[in-house]
Amino acid sequence: MPAMVSETISELRVRYAETDQMGVVYHANYLVWCELGRTDFIRALGKSYAELEREGVRLAVSDVTMRFHAAARYDDPIRVHTRLTAIGSRRLAFAYRVVRADTDTLLVSATTALVSIDMTGRLAAMPQDVRAVLEAAVLPADDGR
Amino acid sequence: MPAMVSETISELRVRYAETDQMGVVYHANYLVWCELGRTDFIRALGKSYAELEREGVRLAVSDVTMRFHAAARYDDPIRVHTRLTAIGSRRLAFAYRVVRADTDTLLVSATTALVSIDMTGRLAAMPQDVRAVLEAAVLPADDGR
Amino acid sequence: MPAMVSETISELRVRYAETDQMGVVYHANYLVWCELGRTDFIRALGKSYAELEREGVRLAVSDVTMRFHAAARYDDPIRVHTRLTAIGSRRLAFAYRVVRADTDTLLVSATTALVSIDMTGRLAAMPQDVRAVLEAAVLPADDGR
Amino acid sequence: MPAMVSETISELRVRYAETDQMGVVYHANYLVWCELGRTDFIRALGKSYAELEREGVRLAVSDVTMRFHAAARYDDPIRVHTRLTAIGSRRLAFAYRVVRADTDTLLVSATTALVSIDMTGRLAAMPQDVRAVLEAAVLPADDGR
Repeated sequence: MPAMVSETISELRVRYAETDQMGVVYHANYLVWCELGRTDFIRALGKSYAELEREGVRLAVSDVTMRFHAAARYDDPIRVHTRLTAIGSRRLAFAYRVVRADTDTLLVSATTALVSIDMTGRLAAMPQDVRAVLEAAVLPADDGR
Repeated sequence: MPAMVSETISELRVRYAETDQMGVVYHANYLVWCELGRTDFIRALGKSYAELEREGVRLAVSDVTMRFHAAARYDDPIRVHTRLTAIGSRRLAFAYRVVRADTDTLLVSATTALVSIDMTGRLAAMPQDVRAVLEAAVLPADDGR
Repeated sequence: MPAMVSETISELRVRYAETDQMGVVYHANYLVWCELGRTDFIRALGKSYAELEREGVRLAVSDVTMRFHAAARYDDPIRVHTRLTAIGSRRLAFAYRVVRADTDTLLVSATTALVSIDMTGRLAAMPQDVRAVLEAAVLPADDGR
Repeated sequence: MPAMVSETISELRVRYAETDQMGVVYHANYLVWCELGRTDFIRALGKSYAELEREGVRLAVSDVTMRFHAAARYDDPIRVHTRLTAIGSRRLAFAYRVVRADTDTLLVSATTALVSIDMTGRLAAMPQDVRAVLEAAVLPADDGR
């Protein structure tokens, strides 16, 4: 895994299935977009999460925070900004900003903490090479944004 | 597995997450309810699908038809009527009627065909005991309804 | 709206559609269950959220926290315990404990804050009668649990 | 609306949320991808479905068929080929082929019929200009594929 990544940007368009009868995106779906951001972030480091899973690494979400600033609507172009804010031997933390791409309006800010588990579901240290690449990509959350 | 089942009825209430901005249930979600009906049907035969999976049986959907008659809305009470309409050594077919429970309005009629596969995804005959119980529960679709 | 409610318990069973390839419930789906708990809590106060919406009240999620303690699996029986922990003229806060019903294992603890908006999406005070009933049902979060 | 479209191709990547514990994409999610294909098809004709809805046009799914040929997995690159196969004053029919983009493997073939309804849910003829553009884009299903 090569890399010098500090933030990745993922692009998507709101699907009809993601709206609810309030006419906006159903709130739980932003977590799906955060995961999409996380997937792109890990891929940018040189190895996809799909490959990591095939090697026995599992990253399970342990904590979530989300704050909703404005609502996304059907067909809106969306950008998810993803950063890795902390990493230990068995834990990672990501921060996300979900914005409307055409107006740059902040829609949701979110964080997720993840734990590294093995295939039986027990906490397990990440492989050393994976951790080294992740460590190089950390950008602490206290950077003023 | 004991049993003398010909139709099961599953009950649920429409979740907000299942609606879309048209103010009705998003069409793909009826397939989730059909699967819920199938799960209840199999459980009624004496062994849950979760147990079948632990024994190595996998039933994968191979064909779907759905016809939409009327729309379900948030918080509506729903009933899914499920029948097994055909069974072979490696195939099953189910038929469903999704109705609004308080008015008996027919919302969706659907069918799914399933194939029995092993854990590697290849077609595989169902265990003889499972098949025997299923065969006893078949109610052909040409029964006039 | 009559009432003297302090906690409601909602029951459900994990759907196949709610699992992911890690073999457990996909994390975003717990938010759907929390909303189901919230719906039942409001209904227990005497008026369903569906009715509130027809009267022009909209409650939009503004903040979410979730902590994952253990994983739910397909077909597990689930209970969602829901409490109202705070209420103002335009804001409410709920706390949830999602447990596995047959073992009482705590799976997820979560909170959501909601804001009252009108049909155009602007912050709007809740109707006085709705607020009065909600206020009678508040159980602050600092009650030692 | 300009146009001379006969087939559109939509690209996406399988999300983790779209898998189930069988390790493949949950079958109902292909319908979400078909809708995405339909959205892109309509947009290619010169006016987005979001705009059509703002003009009062609603297209509701009335019939679905799906046949599953092979399973998509997490992170697979997917292409949805979408064609309009029939159109009347109040009805449209689309056909889809969902393929794995890197191997061209056919995963799912599907059809959906849609009806044009007004904002109260009643059948309503499509606006003449919308229908004219759609008619020019029809490619009947009996074209040998």
